[in-house]
Amino acid sequence: MIDRTKFKHRAQIKVRNYEIDSQGIVHNANFLLYFEVGRVAYAENLGIKVDINTNQHESRVVVVRNEIDYRSPARFGEVIDIYTRISFIRNTSFAFEAFLQEHDSKRLIAENVSIHVWLDQHLHQPRPVPDDFRNLVQKYEGDNVLITWPSYNA
Amino acid sequence: MIDRTKFKHRAQIKVRNYEIDSQGIVHNANFLLYFEVGRVAYAENLGIKVDINTNQHESRVVVVRNEIDYRSPARFGEVIDIYTRISFIRNTSFAFEAFLQEHDSKRLIAENVSIHVWLDQHLHQPRPVPDDFRNLVQKYEGDNVLITWPSYNA
Amino acid sequence: MIDRTKFKHRAQIKVRNYEIDSQGIVHNANFLLYFEVGRVAYAENLGIKVDINTNQHESRVVVVRNEIDYRSPARFGEVIDIYTRISFIRNTSFAFEAFLQEHDSKRLIAENVSIHVWLDQHLHQPRPVPDDFRNLVQKYEGDNVLITWPSYNA
Amino acid sequence: MIDRTKFKHRAQIKVRNYEIDSQGIVHNANFLLYFEVGRVAYAENLGIKVDINTNQHESRVVVVRNEIDYRSPARFGEVIDIYTRISFIRNTSFAFEAFLQEHDSKRLIAENVSIHVWLDQHLHQPRPVPDDFRNLVQKYEGDNVLITWPSYNA
Repeated sequence: MIDRTKFKHRAQIKVRNYEIDSQGIVHNANFLLYFEVGRVAYAENLGIKVDINTNQHESRVVVVRNEIDYRSPARFGEVIDIYTRISFIRNTSFAFEAFLQEHDSKRLIAENVSIHVWLDQHLHQPRPVPDDFRNLVQKYEGDNVLITWPSYNA
Repeated sequence: MIDRTKFKHRAQIKVRNYEIDSQGIVHNANFLLYFEVGRVAYAENLGIKVDINTNQHESRVVVVRNEIDYRSPARFGEVIDIYTRISFIRNTSFAFEAFLQEHDSKRLIAENVSIHVWLDQHLHQPRPVPDDFRNLVQKYEGDNVLITWPSYNA
Repeated sequence: MIDRTKFKHRAQIKVRNYEIDSQGIVHNANFLLYFEVGRVAYAENLGIKVDINTNQHESRVVVVRNEIDYRSPARFGEVIDIYTRISFIRNTSFAFEAFLQEHDSKRLIAENVSIHVWLDQHLHQPRPVPDDFRNLVQKYEGDNVLITWPSYNA
Repeated sequence: MIDRTKFKHRAQIKVRNYEIDSQGIVHNANFLLYFEVGRVAYAENLGIKVDINTNQHESRVVVVRNEIDYRSPARFGEVIDIYTRISFIRNTSFAFEAFLQEHDSKRLIAENVSIHVWLDQHLHQPRPVPDDFRNLVQKYEGDNVLITWPSYNA
């Protein structure tokens, strides 16, 4: 289970009616969308301009793995806090950890670990995580982010 | 990585335009929806009536964990084979494994493991996986499903 | 074109990345979801408890018609004001009008008219719009809502 | 109400569980997605290569108006026929008509009229509907499509 004390960044959403499924609870795939809202807000908070139209870019970031643990159902109208942090940065990849918590009761709803890789624009080859990104994250997270300096810097 | 030789059940979808995101590829959350299409088709193939309006039911099945590995991007119009199997059944839980493969090239797109729990109708307490379900799965999967007989049967 | 001076109620959303399609703009179907966010907020503002789990209810409201005019594309990260009002109430039906406007520039994005009908719980027969609802709307909208009193009250 | 005898093109979908809302029926916004599936299949059937990554194109087609009439609820697992036709082509715009019908019972579910405009790549100025497109549609629809020849051809 995720260590909830390490998180500094919080975004917030309110559950919308069309996110509810036939069981009367938020459909499980929507949690991935909530976590993404958290990651976008996290990046913007670091001062990164998130440009989602990536066709002309030299590089782009893709998700290569997602783990979600569902802890309790979320319901229509609930206000949900999305806590997000970057837990490690390696040579060409990095990880987000996140969790969802009902705002009033602090009830844990779901946890997420996602792994992301920096690729060239054709999605073929990994590229080193840019130093700018490393530095912004390290400045924000401090000792809570584990940064493995790339071998080409050794 | 999933052992692709153990799968007997295949469903099929064609990527729709609204599933494509601003990167020109299927948005990562949609893979969870594809895997769900596979699980529903799997259950129906076993002869299980899938009733998604569960409010009046004595018990219902919820997903408690999802792992997705993204192996290659999927694009508009591609025909995708969804392979699905149940890999284990325990006392109150069971697991699906699944993978997505582009039909023509057999290119691996994504892999999924999901863990499901049988709960009472109020989503409070786990309930034993019904014997009917165990038997149907074992008959279909044979030695490929690992069934742990519940302790109350010991 | 909708008369924008008649609207009192405003809700607000920020465009999320997964709402953007392969053209780099908000996918047209998502506007229906935004308008629904506006209608739910409108009803809650009137003091109506919106209960979306309608299976045990004596009556429920369904949408029978939607008209959407797309005026300009909406883009990732834009803050959108959703203006919503009820324009008429008849015996068993009523209409919402709504429009979307980019917050900073006041650029018109889309307009919507939706017609709703009150049905019995089995979705078979129309039921009169409840007097409570009529009164709440008339109190809020004043002369801007056209209320046709039902014939059974004549 | 749409004249159902004029339609030649049929696509088909099966209602998926995640398309069902808390009322136990297909959420109203999903019908727009079904109609879009029908339009894409219609275009492909004409021999048009549908390329949804439009950033580098000289022109692109956008939807400017949608009308949907909801006639009966659609439920999980139902097979739905999507009938689609082009009803008129003007100088820079054209219209699709479509309806959804439950396959076995032929129960009418919803009707749609959508208006589309050909724009330049920056989405600023209308462009004439290309002659190739006109000709393909007229060949397929025959007298059922009303084509207004553009004035610059006069």
